Amino acid sequence: MGAEIDLSTSDLSGIVADIAEEMKAAPDRGTPAAYIPPLAKVDPAKFGMAVIEADGTCHLAGDAEETFSIQSISKVFALTLALGHVGDQLWKRVGREPSGSAFNSIVQLEFEHGIPRNPFINAGAIVVADILLGRNEPREAIGEMLRFVRTLAGEDDIVIDREVADAEAATGYRNAALASYMRSFGNIHHDVERTLGVYFHACALAMSCRQLALAGRYLMAGGMLPSTGRRIVSAQRARRINALMMTCGHYDGSGEFAFRVGLPGKSGVGGGILAIVPGRASVAVWSPGLNERGNSQLGTLALERLVQRTGWSVFEPALG
Amino acid sequence: MGAEIDLSTSDLSGIVADIAEEMKAAPDRGTPAAYIPPLAKVDPAKFGMAVIEADGTCHLAGDAEETFSIQSISKVFALTLALGHVGDQLWKRVGREPSGSAFNSIVQLEFEHGIPRNPFINAGAIVVADILLGRNEPREAIGEMLRFVRTLAGEDDIVIDREVADAEAATGYRNAALASYMRSFGNIHHDVERTLGVYFHACALAMSCRQLALAGRYLMAGGMLPSTGRRIVSAQRARRINALMMTCGHYDGSGEFAFRVGLPGKSGVGGGILAIVPGRASVAVWSPGLNERGNSQLGTLALERLVQRTGWSVFEPALG
Amino acid sequence: MGAEIDLSTSDLSGIVADIAEEMKAAPDRGTPAAYIPPLAKVDPAKFGMAVIEADGTCHLAGDAEETFSIQSISKVFALTLALGHVGDQLWKRVGREPSGSAFNSIVQLEFEHGIPRNPFINAGAIVVADILLGRNEPREAIGEMLRFVRTLAGEDDIVIDREVADAEAATGYRNAALASYMRSFGNIHHDVERTLGVYFHACALAMSCRQLALAGRYLMAGGMLPSTGRRIVSAQRARRINALMMTCGHYDGSGEFAFRVGLPGKSGVGGGILAIVPGRASVAVWSPGLNERGNSQLGTLALERLVQRTGWSVFEPALG
Amino acid sequence: MGAEIDLSTSDLSGIVADIAEEMKAAPDRGTPAAYIPPLAKVDPAKFGMAVIEADGTCHLAGDAEETFSIQSISKVFALTLALGHVGDQLWKRVGREPSGSAFNSIVQLEFEHGIPRNPFINAGAIVVADILLGRNEPREAIGEMLRFVRTLAGEDDIVIDREVADAEAATGYRNAALASYMRSFGNIHHDVERTLGVYFHACALAMSCRQLALAGRYLMAGGMLPSTGRRIVSAQRARRINALMMTCGHYDGSGEFAFRVGLPGKSGVGGGILAIVPGRASVAVWSPGLNERGNSQLGTLALERLVQRTGWSVFEPALG
Repeated sequence: MGAEIDLSTSDLSGIVADIAEEMKAAPDRGTPAAYIPPLAKVDPAKFGMAVIEADGTCHLAGDAEETFSIQSISKVFALTLALGHVGDQLWKRVGREPSGSAFNSIVQLEFEHGIPRNPFINAGAIVVADILLGRNEPREAIGEMLRFVRTLAGEDDIVIDREVADAEAATGYRNAALASYMRSFGNIHHDVERTLGVYFHACALAMSCRQLALAGRYLMAGGMLPSTGRRIVSAQRARRINALMMTCGHYDGSGEFAFRVGLPGKSGVGGGILAIVPGRASVAVWSPGLNERGNSQLGTLALERLVQRTGWSVFEPALG
Repeated sequence: MGAEIDLSTSDLSGIVADIAEEMKAAPDRGTPAAYIPPLAKVDPAKFGMAVIEADGTCHLAGDAEETFSIQSISKVFALTLALGHVGDQLWKRVGREPSGSAFNSIVQLEFEHGIPRNPFINAGAIVVADILLGRNEPREAIGEMLRFVRTLAGEDDIVIDREVADAEAATGYRNAALASYMRSFGNIHHDVERTLGVYFHACALAMSCRQLALAGRYLMAGGMLPSTGRRIVSAQRARRINALMMTCGHYDGSGEFAFRVGLPGKSGVGGGILAIVPGRASVAVWSPGLNERGNSQLGTLALERLVQRTGWSVFEPALG
Repeated sequence: MGAEIDLSTSDLSGIVADIAEEMKAAPDRGTPAAYIPPLAKVDPAKFGMAVIEADGTCHLAGDAEETFSIQSISKVFALTLALGHVGDQLWKRVGREPSGSAFNSIVQLEFEHGIPRNPFINAGAIVVADILLGRNEPREAIGEMLRFVRTLAGEDDIVIDREVADAEAATGYRNAALASYMRSFGNIHHDVERTLGVYFHACALAMSCRQLALAGRYLMAGGMLPSTGRRIVSAQRARRINALMMTCGHYDGSGEFAFRVGLPGKSGVGGGILAIVPGRASVAVWSPGLNERGNSQLGTLALERLVQRTGWSVFEPALG
Repeated sequence: MGAEIDLSTSDLSGIVADIAEEMKAAPDRGTPAAYIPPLAKVDPAKFGMAVIEADGTCHLAGDAEETFSIQSISKVFALTLALGHVGDQLWKRVGREPSGSAFNSIVQLEFEHGIPRNPFINAGAIVVADILLGRNEPREAIGEMLRFVRTLAGEDDIVIDREVADAEAATGYRNAALASYMRSFGNIHHDVERTLGVYFHACALAMSCRQLALAGRYLMAGGMLPSTGRRIVSAQRARRINALMMTCGHYDGSGEFAFRVGLPGKSGVGGGILAIVPGRASVAVWSPGLNERGNSQLGTLALERLVQRTGWSVFEPALG
């Protein structure tokens, strides 16, 4: 508590390099998701990390330039976009509480009459996709989502991996069940296939750690895109999205992530995690092996190491 | 983002006074807890607030000097004390995830084989009380707990309200059910009555907002007691307790509290809330009326106002 | 206990007429199902009853010749047909226990990994439909089902109400959710739409009380069709289907039906009930108003009266 | 369908002897309950069977004269006695539906606000014990229960096994949890210890198969005690208790028991089962090994054999 105040850019590059080295050698790497065939083929030895500071300085290590399927991390960007469309009306259709249950979400939907607990579990993100679809064709909604993420990252070559999107659609019976079930409560307004089309394509965004950290900068910077000065969301909305990432960003491992890392973060089953250090940095890590809660095992460990060495936890008194 | 950097002590006194005035006049005050008779008798018009800054400056408003039953806020101090006794072994008997379910905790205990989700729901705090009991008599464990809170607050006249403790014991069948149920899984080691004796007496601690804010200072200050320089817990443990307060401190309203307030906090059914601004302030509010999740309605609103005017959310970029 | 031994055919006609008269005048008739528009239009004043004795004598009263939507009563015939196709292999995909829970079946599917509790709840009947579909087109499977029911009743003019089938498909999101969910566990083998097509058409069978009682005769007669001497199922299978009707035939009101009536029975949300008096009679009643468990209010009462006056409960010592 | 009409007494003795012989040699005997130490000590090779016909003829085989702990079978006698005390008012505090859930009863109590699903699961039987306690001392209520069972069996030497009762009390934390939990809803009226005292002692009744079959005769005979002509309950109440045994008598294996055996029955974790053939016979079997649902493995098989050879299923058309 104190050393971090003087943390220099070169110190930080060293820290990031050290962590990547430790992770490359880590013996217990978790297990990659197997249920989507293209994800199961990814090399479990991969590890990448990108830290982008408030001033734009970028620290990369490992496979930070290699693209991977961001999967549920897209829920953050989709929520941001949907809030732009309908504002706080969105919260009539989605809650803001941790799902908090090892037995997953369809049970909760029954008890809570089709209102998913938060926008970062599948059911909630499907409602968000339904909002994004609005009066458009799925193709248009997917296009808007892609353009939005490209704007956030400032890179035009981000793409959606069609093979992944198709594989999700082909095996996504549980998501179809969630969508049909919510439709039975009136909380999905479009044909289930159309809404899921938007959802699956958003999940199939392929990005590198560097691109993902770039795309997360607006949450570090009070809602502004630092490179352009353009406001993406209000400062209040940025804080609130961060709060949701803290309490709900890691499924039923959100409490553990807050306990160990202490940053707002969102994980995806592709092995990526986006973590936000408000006012300080946007961080992306990637390692395909998952822990028993479905979050990247080494990604979490890498972030824990980063926070230990930088004092960047939001629960740290001397952040400043 | 910026103004708060120059927040002066006199600004802060004005803010606290403004909030107290607004709250005194608020029409919708929630409903005081009715199930413990002595709590049901408390005047719902009460409102108190205390903000203690890192340098010890104290801002009081409203009924900040009136004692109330801190109830579940005691779970924070009990957890701190129990971690001192058994260290991280405690986490073998208690989880670290939000309970996240409107249907409350005995269901979860069945699915998770007697391991409560976190130390801030009743089941978890009963396990913590069982740990505090250790090899002692309940009277000794209760005495230790009282001394610990007196030390944290630096005040010797804090007491336990025996009328409240007796009323809880007389009507606490649900807590007895939780304790017996966990005992059936081997996760309570003492006679249920003895363990509950410790638990009920800790809940019956009577403190004022000022005393409560004093007692919370170690969580603001990286684990140190600022007045004495004495270390209560390590910096890491202080961060972790703050993280638990953020994700689990308001029962099934924890996500909402993080969304609106953005601070680690712990509420009690007596209407109190302790909130921590790491490095900045320890804050206590009290208003007896509860919202539908069992958290102080005006207490939450008062903290939301405080954060709006000070920029003290941990999710705010320019804290510092 | 004794009088019923001498129950004559004319006594029985009088009893049936008395019951119909009482039911026609009953003030509290329950509430017709509203979620399928064509069902909501049915006149709640309707009441019909048909009792067909082992020797073929038929007692009719009220609207016993008017057709209604048999809905879930079709699950009995579908199960019988599917057991004919795959034998006891069917029980690998469907359980034999009461669902026994007011909170309905999708929760149970999650805990029991996609295996529905019994063939008489929706999820179980959808698996049965999936089995009936086999390698055929839905049209063929529906045709086979229709022929089977016509054979059982010995009447060729039984039809499927296309308006009802279409209405169910248009609003059947919860059934689509169940099917998709079971498909995610591998317990539905065909496209959800195709399987549900078979299911919805079976539910849309339109039959009169007389026809329904005729169709149930094989369960009264140890598996034989009395009119032709043709064996439909073995005596053991007939007993077992009766047992399932007793424990699972009235959703979460099965215990109550056994308690009050004491006969194997299966209800449908169209207001019909088929009840079997082994060795004695096949009975059908119909009244559109449902009780809070979704079973025909007056249909249940009518059967209770019938059993009181005939001593036909299977739990009655002197049946014989 | 027909042969059973001519079943002679000597045929039946042969059948019972055959079954006992088969069971004595059966390789897969299940696993005795381990959680109550005195039960865990019972020899798993034991098997007893007693069939008492309506005319009083008694067929015994195997260890039919050896006493065992009847455990939950006592719930049938306790229910009968409590209905005698308070009549159908009892059903305001206990339901009549199968619990129907592999995840057991405390979950259900939460959803259904402290009303247990039926009197044959532990929670329901604890409410029944609370009713039996009434305004008496536990000792008196236990004495009344013992006298009642002695009257039913017509034998004065039936006793309660104090060692078993004490062992249950010492380890019965889950039952204490159920009782405390129901007390929190106001559905237990006495001190938990007192109510559980009655409950545990009833469970600890020690009886032989012969005694148990004798005690069950009133349920076979329309509520009369055949030996004395004394009416124990009305014919309607006898039918209804039989119905409850059919739908709820084997915990979450009740559907399976109805499917395989087709008789009202009640099992206990001591390995006993009481089964009723209305108008025909009262049957008791005992073998300590349990199946995965907690019901006697060989006891169930023995009853299945008996029904196969006698045609005694209540779902059999030609019973008579």
